[in-house]
Amino acid sequence: MKSGPLNLITDVEGLLVGNAEDHGIKTGTTVLTGEQPFTAAVHVMGGAPGTRETDLLAPDRMVQQVHALVLSGGSALGLASASGVADALRAQGKGLDVAGQIVPIVPAAIVFDLVNGGDKNWPENPYPALGRNALSVAARDFGLGTVGAGTGATTAGFKGGLGSASLVLPSGHTVGALVVVNALGRATVDGGPHFWAAPFELEAEFGGLGPASAYDPLPFATKHQLRNAATTIAIVATDAALDQAQATRVATAAHDGMARALVPSHTPADGDLVFAAATGARPVNDPVGDVLTIGHAAALCLSRAIARGVYSATSAPGDPFPTWKDTFG
Amino acid sequence: MKSGPLNLITDVEGLLVGNAEDHGIKTGTTVLTGEQPFTAAVHVMGGAPGTRETDLLAPDRMVQQVHALVLSGGSALGLASASGVADALRAQGKGLDVAGQIVPIVPAAIVFDLVNGGDKNWPENPYPALGRNALSVAARDFGLGTVGAGTGATTAGFKGGLGSASLVLPSGHTVGALVVVNALGRATVDGGPHFWAAPFELEAEFGGLGPASAYDPLPFATKHQLRNAATTIAIVATDAALDQAQATRVATAAHDGMARALVPSHTPADGDLVFAAATGARPVNDPVGDVLTIGHAAALCLSRAIARGVYSATSAPGDPFPTWKDTFG
Repeated sequence: MKSGPLNLITDVEGLLVGNAEDHGIKTGTTVLTGEQPFTAAVHVMGGAPGTRETDLLAPDRMVQQVHALVLSGGSALGLASASGVADALRAQGKGLDVAGQIVPIVPAAIVFDLVNGGDKNWPENPYPALGRNALSVAARDFGLGTVGAGTGATTAGFKGGLGSASLVLPSGHTVGALVVVNALGRATVDGGPHFWAAPFELEAEFGGLGPASAYDPLPFATKHQLRNAATTIAIVATDAALDQAQATRVATAAHDGMARALVPSHTPADGDLVFAAATGARPVNDPVGDVLTIGHAAALCLSRAIARGVYSATSAPGDPFPTWKDTFG
Repeated sequence: MKSGPLNLITDVEGLLVGNAEDHGIKTGTTVLTGEQPFTAAVHVMGGAPGTRETDLLAPDRMVQQVHALVLSGGSALGLASASGVADALRAQGKGLDVAGQIVPIVPAAIVFDLVNGGDKNWPENPYPALGRNALSVAARDFGLGTVGAGTGATTAGFKGGLGSASLVLPSGHTVGALVVVNALGRATVDGGPHFWAAPFELEAEFGGLGPASAYDPLPFATKHQLRNAATTIAIVATDAALDQAQATRVATAAHDGMARALVPSHTPADGDLVFAAATGARPVNDPVGDVLTIGHAAALCLSRAIARGVYSATSAPGDPFPTWKDTFG
């Protein structure tokens, strides 16, 4: 078992990711879209989520498939990025056909990056354009770290970022994760070089330093001075033909990957959530076993993606925290 | 910062725990009760929960306080244990006074331990008596491992058990956890002696071997032959004056402790859930900060309690798995 060829969520065939950012504002937007609409679900565990269209994703609701998922900076103001994406999709004729009207379904979630050294005095909300621009460059390959919605992200002690990873299962299913790491907690043990996610690292994808050999057993450090500047949001994806209920279970299980890679996570000040996306290209043969394995793989990919996001961050003027690479790289 | 004097959930003053078991059936029941009623909440994350009175614990519902929380073996049949507890509490005059009628509120959750080598051909449901007996011996001190609801518990590769741990915070609040470890996943790295929870161990409370130095990065092993014989259920508790909404947030955050101590956890076949209990003896001074810290501490205690439950298990004839101690102790 190993990661897919790109080690990105786009190893799930048919999915594309686009990023747009404004380095002056220190923010950006990330769009996951599909060559076709895809099944989507969500599980929210943080205490301060900022979301759009997540109620629609419950398994008993009308719509099972979406046209894009958006992760953005900007706190509640950044939800406008999804409107930009929806408008652009409509102009392309992509959306749900409701009596001849095209309505793109674009669930979204945001992180709080309004206190990160960027210039937030914009004359006009920049997020609709960031959403449109991110969609316009959606492709299989994309960068990690200080890009897209990860541009202005922080963690306790180090700059955060955009991360991704993938895994190909013995069943043939591909699983991937995409994450904006903007956690209240730490991604490394005691603020040192060793990532909490190290037990799950493949092929030195975040430095290959291995797990820490010593731990503070009571790791309580958080970025107290930026206590509300938090939230980690993720998408896990698979080519398995999950229904929305199964995708919800995968989103739930994937939160374990956040818990293992960030300490603490799921705090009252984090809006931590996970979307799950399923393209449906590969059948599910064992409804319990496959969903179990895909959920577990999603958690492993999410842990790895979190570490890769922090590992890949690059420094910029005015940053409130150093990057992992500037410190240990 | 260190554990409380007993390193048990009952370091939270006013809480008492009682256990009863039947070693022939290989099952049992654990009751947490209070000298006074206490605030309770719940967060369910597993795919196969078995519960009673959990709907009542949502923050918008009528009742905020309960008289006992019950963890039991027996799958759905074991929910009868809570009826035994409720009947016994009523006989003591303890319960909610509704127009002169005493109604004890006893939320409960079960684990599946029906395929563990015990004799399940009982002539009469044994759980009401197990509940009554557990309540009758409720005290501050209690045993760990193969006792109470942990009696028939298993994990992937090793016997499970009842675990507990506590922590005293700088704020003066005490936090504790109580858990029945019956996971589909593993509590130790690659089935070896090192617990996943090792980074959080205090004072060699589960052997002091420290963390593993090497990891299989794709730890997919589960007890496939007993795929449905799973579920880890826990109670985290504090003396903080949490309201039910805050207690719900603490229950949610505490699931991180399960994710870090069991790999995988929160699978479709695990009914994983966490109750949170708050006695209210100590005020909450900082609604965000205290709830954040108490939730994080609850996660740390739960990880430690899970390892202690597996570490403390003792062997018995007919067990499907060896104990950790027989293998490594």
